[in-house]
Amino acid sequence: MKRTAFFISDGTGLTAEALGHSLLAQFEKIEFERVTVPYIADEEKAREMVKRINKAAETDGARPLVFDTIVNSDIREIIATAEGFMVDIFGTFLSPLEQELQSSSSYTVGKSHAINNEGSYERRINAVNFALDNDDGARTRHYDEADLILVGASRSGKTPTCLYLALQYGVKAANYPITEEDLADQQIPKALKPYKEKIFGLTIEPERLATIRNERKPNSRYSSIKQCMHEIEEIELMYRRERIPYLNTTAYSVEEISTRIMVTTGLKRQR
Amino acid sequence: MKRTAFFISDGTGLTAEALGHSLLAQFEKIEFERVTVPYIADEEKAREMVKRINKAAETDGARPLVFDTIVNSDIREIIATAEGFMVDIFGTFLSPLEQELQSSSSYTVGKSHAINNEGSYERRINAVNFALDNDDGARTRHYDEADLILVGASRSGKTPTCLYLALQYGVKAANYPITEEDLADQQIPKALKPYKEKIFGLTIEPERLATIRNERKPNSRYSSIKQCMHEIEEIELMYRRERIPYLNTTAYSVEEISTRIMVTTGLKRQR
Repeated sequence: MKRTAFFISDGTGLTAEALGHSLLAQFEKIEFERVTVPYIADEEKAREMVKRINKAAETDGARPLVFDTIVNSDIREIIATAEGFMVDIFGTFLSPLEQELQSSSSYTVGKSHAINNEGSYERRINAVNFALDNDDGARTRHYDEADLILVGASRSGKTPTCLYLALQYGVKAANYPITEEDLADQQIPKALKPYKEKIFGLTIEPERLATIRNERKPNSRYSSIKQCMHEIEEIELMYRRERIPYLNTTAYSVEEISTRIMVTTGLKRQR
Repeated sequence: MKRTAFFISDGTGLTAEALGHSLLAQFEKIEFERVTVPYIADEEKAREMVKRINKAAETDGARPLVFDTIVNSDIREIIATAEGFMVDIFGTFLSPLEQELQSSSSYTVGKSHAINNEGSYERRINAVNFALDNDDGARTRHYDEADLILVGASRSGKTPTCLYLALQYGVKAANYPITEEDLADQQIPKALKPYKEKIFGLTIEPERLATIRNERKPNSRYSSIKQCMHEIEEIELMYRRERIPYLNTTAYSVEEISTRIMVTTGLKRQR
C-alpha cells in the first residue's frame, strides 16, 4: 500500500523535508509518495493544501502523513483541518523549549521565523567563485587564500565537493587533479608544496572510477580499468608517504564527503 | 546569558542542524553558541560528547540544548546521561509514526538509518557538470538537454543558483548572461529563442548589483550605479515584454531563490 507524505512549510521546506525523509527512512517496508510544498504562507494557499491532502487521502485509501514547519498559527490551524496525520514539528518542540529557556518564542506571537541561512550570503558566493576560479588546477596562485586544497585523480569527485563546501559551509576550496606527470615524481606536486597543511586527498575504487570516466570518454585509455587501477594505487601510495589525510569517496554522497572533510580537517563553517 | 546548543548526529548532522536552527530562530532574545557534531557513531565518541556537553554546562552556568538525530539506542542512552536539555527528534516522532503506519521502524530494532541523499548521486554530479559546462553562456549547443536556462545581468546570482539546483535537486540548469548587445535588440537573445519555455529570469536591486560588481571590478563603468540601473531597467522590461517569469533575488538566499524557481516553473526533483 502506498502512503503519501507531504512536507509543508512557509519557507523553503528544506527542514521539513530533511527531517521527514530521515524519519521515513526508518520504515523500509512502506512505499511513500513524497511531496514537498514550500511557501504555504497565506490562508488561500493553506486551503488549497487542505484540498490536496484530502484528495491524496481518498486516492490512497489512507490518510497522508503531513510534516510541517509552518510558523503562523492561523495557517497551521487551517492545515490541521485536513484528513492527514500531522507531524507538528514546531508545535511539538517549541513549548518545552520555551519552558527550558524561560522565554516566549516569536512563534507564540505569530511572528515569521528566520529562514535557515548558514553563513553570510557574500561569504558563500565568494567561496563559490573561489571554487570556480581555482577548479582543476587551472590556477595555483590563489592557494594562499584557500581554506582547503582538494587533490585526487581526475573524476574522483573534487569539483562537486568543492562547490558543496562553498555553498553549505562558506569554505574556500581549490582543487588540483593529480596527473601521471605528478605521480612520476613520487611526491607532492611542486605547486602544492608550500600549502601542504591545506591539502586533503580523495580516492575512489578503481572500478567506480572507470565507470565514471567511461561516461565521459568511452573506451579510452583514460577510462580503462588498468589505467584507473594504476593511478589510484600510485595516488594512495603518495598520500601515505606524504601523510596527507584522505577519504575513499566510493560509498558516500557529496554531503557526506564534505561533512567528513570538515570533521577531519577541523575546518569551521565560515560566516 | 549565553546558551550552548549542540546538534548531534551519527550521520552528517545536517538534519539536526537545520531543525535546531529553525527552532532557535524563534528565540531572538537569547544568544546561542551553536556547535554541530556529526558522526557520533560509537560509544567512545558518545562518551567524549557527554564530557563536552557537561563542560559547556559548567562554563555557561546553564545546561546546553542538545538536538540529536542518533538512531542507535545504545549511543542515545549514553548521550542522555549528559547535563543537557535533550530535544529527542527521532524518539519523539517515531513512536506515533509506528502506530499510524502499523509498522515497526528500523530504529526500534537498532538499525542504522539511510542518510538523506536526495536524487541519485550520478544525476546530481551530471547536473553539476552540466551547470559548469554551460555556465555564463559559454556554450549554447547543449540547451536542448537543459531543464532550465537562467538569464540575468552579470553578477545577479545565476551561477550559484545553477549549482545549488544541480546539487540539491539534480536539475540541469544552464545560464546565460544578458549583455548590452542583447539589450540593444530589445528581445530574447537569438540563441535562446528555441528554448523560450525553459527560460527563467533573475533580477536584483541596482544598488546591490553595484556593490557586488565593485568587489570584482572597483570603480569601473561596469560597476557604476548608473550602468547597473540602466541594465536592470532594460532587462526587466525585456522580461515583461517577452513574458519571461522572473524573480528579484536581492533579499533571498541561494536556497530560497532555488526553491522559488522550482515552485514557479513546476520543475520536479530529478532522481
